[in-house]
Amino acid sequence: MSGDGFARVEADLRKRMAASAFHNWMGMALGRIGPGEVEVTLDAAAHHLNLQGSVHGGVLASLADAAAGLAVRTRVPHGSRHVTVQLGMSYLRASQTGRLIAHGRAVRVGRRIAFAEARIEDGGGRLLATAQATVAVRPPREAAG
Amino acid sequence: MSGDGFARVEADLRKRMAASAFHNWMGMALGRIGPGEVEVTLDAAAHHLNLQGSVHGGVLASLADAAAGLAVRTRVPHGSRHVTVQLGMSYLRASQTGRLIAHGRAVRVGRRIAFAEARIEDGGGRLLATAQATVAVRPPREAAG
Amino acid sequence: MSGDGFARVEADLRKRMAASAFHNWMGMALGRIGPGEVEVTLDAAAHHLNLQGSVHGGVLASLADAAAGLAVRTRVPHGSRHVTVQLGMSYLRASQTGRLIAHGRAVRVGRRIAFAEARIEDGGGRLLATAQATVAVRPPREAAG
Amino acid sequence: MSGDGFARVEADLRKRMAASAFHNWMGMALGRIGPGEVEVTLDAAAHHLNLQGSVHGGVLASLADAAAGLAVRTRVPHGSRHVTVQLGMSYLRASQTGRLIAHGRAVRVGRRIAFAEARIEDGGGRLLATAQATVAVRPPREAAG
Repeated sequence: MSGDGFARVEADLRKRMAASAFHNWMGMALGRIGPGEVEVTLDAAAHHLNLQGSVHGGVLASLADAAAGLAVRTRVPHGSRHVTVQLGMSYLRASQTGRLIAHGRAVRVGRRIAFAEARIEDGGGRLLATAQATVAVRPPREAAG
Repeated sequence: MSGDGFARVEADLRKRMAASAFHNWMGMALGRIGPGEVEVTLDAAAHHLNLQGSVHGGVLASLADAAAGLAVRTRVPHGSRHVTVQLGMSYLRASQTGRLIAHGRAVRVGRRIAFAEARIEDGGGRLLATAQATVAVRPPREAAG
Repeated sequence: MSGDGFARVEADLRKRMAASAFHNWMGMALGRIGPGEVEVTLDAAAHHLNLQGSVHGGVLASLADAAAGLAVRTRVPHGSRHVTVQLGMSYLRASQTGRLIAHGRAVRVGRRIAFAEARIEDGGGRLLATAQATVAVRPPREAAG
Repeated sequence: MSGDGFARVEADLRKRMAASAFHNWMGMALGRIGPGEVEVTLDAAAHHLNLQGSVHGGVLASLADAAAGLAVRTRVPHGSRHVTVQLGMSYLRASQTGRLIAHGRAVRVGRRIAFAEARIEDGGGRLLATAQATVAVRPPREAAG
């Protein structure tokens, strides 16, 4: 994809995220984006913590799913639909409030199935969680049908 | 466990959930509870939907993790700590706004490791997602140490 | 599907398994089969054990993948191709030599993606492992193309 | 760990693998080993293929589990026991007969729980599968008890 083509992909993604009720409510923001790679950030606050005082696994799964799914999105034709069908989370370390960064990466993007992974770090670069995602892709013509 | 013993477990869990900022913010509530089985409900609203108009995978993961983790909690000695170390989500069907019910079940609870699963249905009983969770358990003495 | 139609599915599956070098080498055999449900058995011997004397996780994964994949196969049109794209194994208990039975079940079979699960027990009915599988399905016309 | 200490770990691992009925039967051999990193190879033959002519997912899971588990083994105290409790496989590409190489890596090794991953490539360096493993570790004193 040309740099120009990717600039359009990025602009589209940033516009959609900025307008998304879910991402605003969850507190997610887009970081750096490149072809097949997307960063999503979240500043974990008290309401993101579980009963034991650590960031809830569901918050980390939300971040990982977003980063992995958007990484795939940067690599499929415009107008395709993509939906995560499977997500595997490994929770390596507990984390408290503060900056979280999810690095999503498309590992293989086929016509129908894509594979992506995500790694979540805290502001100090400690690895908190890793994720594997399986994503179903529907090409533009079918998606429109 | 005696029925009386379990009534204390249930009362403790209901009190903690009711006071939890995370669960209130996410919109989760406890449904029926039994030894090794916990239901968690959520009324999905517009802010729970992803960019494609379906409930975000992270919301379903939050529900599944809560239901599976709490199901384990009902089966470990009082004062133990438990933390989900791995969560595998299968997303079977997209779902829109409305009632979601996660049924968590402890499949095997060992001294150090527990296994649980969760199934999420919508209000009409359609199966939306299944989950497998691996949970690390720390006995009371160590947890206190 | 008519009972007669399923009898053909079953006969086809039994013939293919009996002729499969992999399944013979691994020691797998088909047990009961029904629409969306398949049992696969294996008599674990010394060469199936890991360095610690328990059945190797890869043997259990082979059983689970076979049972889950074949359960899906009983539910897709003749001539379709199906391939497991993701497999999540939970290893609940160690097991030694003896009879192993994997119960595979198709949980949802869509046009492109199917979801299945498997449970592996020993001869005494103890649950040893559970599995979640995601399976990509290619319809007959495309599979032929 | 000193280089000398690791040489003993490596020698022990090579001796045990060479004597293992499972690994010989499966056709696995140890490749390069370092602290927290282990390569396992297998030359896929006709009996490793599934009904559709590709290497069976259970063979790839066996390789991944071995590589990930042994990578953890290089990082735990001598005399510890370790057992894989969860394994998530993503199958990216089908592969035929020929050399397979699994690269296992310990991502985090705690006192009770370790996390590892594995990537499987063919002889041409094509990525065939990725894996996430969760491993329970029992310290030497308890393991002896």
